[in-house]
Amino acid sequence: MLDIKITKTTAPKKLPDKDDPLTFGTIFTDHMFMMDYKEGIGWYDARIIPYQPISLEPSAMVFHYGQEMFEGLKAYKAKDGRILLFRPDMNAKRTNRSCRRLCIPEIPEEDFIQAIKELVKIDSAWVPTREGTSLYIRPFIIATDPFLGVRPSKTYKFIIILSPVGAYYPEGINPVKIWIEDDYVRAVKGGIGEAKAGGNYVASLKAQIKAHDEGYSQVLWLDGVHRKYVEEVGSMNIFFKIDGVVVTPELSGSILPGVTRDSVITLCKSWGYKVEERLISIDEIYEAYQKGKLEEVFGTGTAAVISPVGQLRWKDHIMRIGDGNTGPLSRKLYDSLTGIQLGKLKDIFNWTVVVE
Amino acid sequence: MLDIKITKTTAPKKLPDKDDPLTFGTIFTDHMFMMDYKEGIGWYDARIIPYQPISLEPSAMVFHYGQEMFEGLKAYKAKDGRILLFRPDMNAKRTNRSCRRLCIPEIPEEDFIQAIKELVKIDSAWVPTREGTSLYIRPFIIATDPFLGVRPSKTYKFIIILSPVGAYYPEGINPVKIWIEDDYVRAVKGGIGEAKAGGNYVASLKAQIKAHDEGYSQVLWLDGVHRKYVEEVGSMNIFFKIDGVVVTPELSGSILPGVTRDSVITLCKSWGYKVEERLISIDEIYEAYQKGKLEEVFGTGTAAVISPVGQLRWKDHIMRIGDGNTGPLSRKLYDSLTGIQLGKLKDIFNWTVVVE
Repeated sequence: MLDIKITKTTAPKKLPDKDDPLTFGTIFTDHMFMMDYKEGIGWYDARIIPYQPISLEPSAMVFHYGQEMFEGLKAYKAKDGRILLFRPDMNAKRTNRSCRRLCIPEIPEEDFIQAIKELVKIDSAWVPTREGTSLYIRPFIIATDPFLGVRPSKTYKFIIILSPVGAYYPEGINPVKIWIEDDYVRAVKGGIGEAKAGGNYVASLKAQIKAHDEGYSQVLWLDGVHRKYVEEVGSMNIFFKIDGVVVTPELSGSILPGVTRDSVITLCKSWGYKVEERLISIDEIYEAYQKGKLEEVFGTGTAAVISPVGQLRWKDHIMRIGDGNTGPLSRKLYDSLTGIQLGKLKDIFNWTVVVE
Repeated sequence: MLDIKITKTTAPKKLPDKDDPLTFGTIFTDHMFMMDYKEGIGWYDARIIPYQPISLEPSAMVFHYGQEMFEGLKAYKAKDGRILLFRPDMNAKRTNRSCRRLCIPEIPEEDFIQAIKELVKIDSAWVPTREGTSLYIRPFIIATDPFLGVRPSKTYKFIIILSPVGAYYPEGINPVKIWIEDDYVRAVKGGIGEAKAGGNYVASLKAQIKAHDEGYSQVLWLDGVHRKYVEEVGSMNIFFKIDGVVVTPELSGSILPGVTRDSVITLCKSWGYKVEERLISIDEIYEAYQKGKLEEVFGTGTAAVISPVGQLRWKDHIMRIGDGNTGPLSRKLYDSLTGIQLGKLKDIFNWTVVVE
């Protein structure tokens, strides 16, 4: 149990208007959580302080060697006024998996969740209520040793910031167009692809720009070894409904183990769908498309929840999925997930955690 | 030509003692260079200021998405008092190659070199003179947009800091023991391995710790696709002398194009060696070792210059290179490179640039 010292702001910012649809990740709340780490001491000095700049030495290792990790989850305001977190234990566990791969000291799961709860409670007025909005929670860890040389840092900062957000993609729940990339690679087995590490995201930018230039919203990555197995989309996992079966790439070591991915698998199974986690080649997808069996494609992620895919472009082949509208399974998943997240539907899997 | 505004420190730090052998990357000089970038404006406000912390929003993109790059080069004090830079044009060019891959705006080569020269001139008293020491120059760029979401930043900072340094490895010019890694992967073709990006270094830490635990100083990486072709060592490129021929991995897309690597190739060729840049499998290395033809192995890099390898461990095979001492070619390269860098030897390739 952390002993969190609280210093409240004396200059609260203006809350966004209730009817503001909000953008993503541009405004931040009044407070932030911060905790330091030092080799030999461990994590110490847990505190909630006014949202403020971070001051670091120019030699701080995070600026040079990319030793940094982040998480993302959301808080929702239910109709009855309760504030609900969605599966924060999954983020706590994934934080520590990322930390182990990136040689960052782990954080006890209960401390991670406690810090989030206390911060959200203090800034609870910032949880928006308009449909499609939520309070995005961004925990992250950065290496702070003032040292040039390649080794793990001996000091770190764990920080949590909060941002009231609307839709991550301008398309919202409407279908997006996806570019299948066969030149650039995001990650490879044995690398850091399954960690939520900054390095994976910067690696994705070049192909993202290429896709945008071609009129596509997002990139679907193929594996770095054979350049044929589907991995993930931009900042989401990917699902295909082929001939009635729900198929998603298995967690092979270079794919992010998404919380929404896990939730979608659970929901689909509970509805009686056959769900397969396995290798999926892009040729298989194209063949299913040609045979008229590629019924739905959608991305899953905390930021976008469910993002239906309306079009896939692979080399010169354009695959138009369904009739151009959001498919029935995508819609049902979106409604069920957001229904549980908002406390409108029964939480049969005990996924939500109340901030009290 | 940059118009660099200069603000000198009013509290200069104590210079290290002349006889201090110095460590690597732990002390920094009195000043730093800084320049900002904003979309629509370009790079602006070039300035030299007292060495000081950087203040950034906690949402600054560099903390979350790893959009950062760095360079490394050295300034040396010649016997006649001149301060010499070694091939700064190569670092300027590589900066822009890294920037292109990482979607960071480029910096005109001449501005990059001018900034380094002016900063080194102001802190010229910090260039150490003891043998084996130099002034390490660390230019780096970080993404500063206060924004959560995956896209290139629209604002950046380009910073240069200086550190008087001694040997990068405690072994100095003595042979190091190298662990050949066949589980973790540093980078893969199509990824960011050829850019000097933070993400590549954090990816290397886990295997480095594993190697240390086994009693090895550094990791030799194999390619991420076949897991058999030699790529590079920790923070260096790698060379083998096999049966009289100098062999080094070709720049395949996942290997850093080292300035010292290029210089070593040029020197070896000028001495009449046959130099091959090509794919080299670890099996080939082991076979050459078994036949008694693996004459020398050494790493090359700005930080360590030449780092002879005394032992290679691949699975259960231990290869002991030479007689345990620094090989003649490694020694000759070290003496030649540092001779040119220090202005002791004739600079027939015009590699050095005087800071005036």
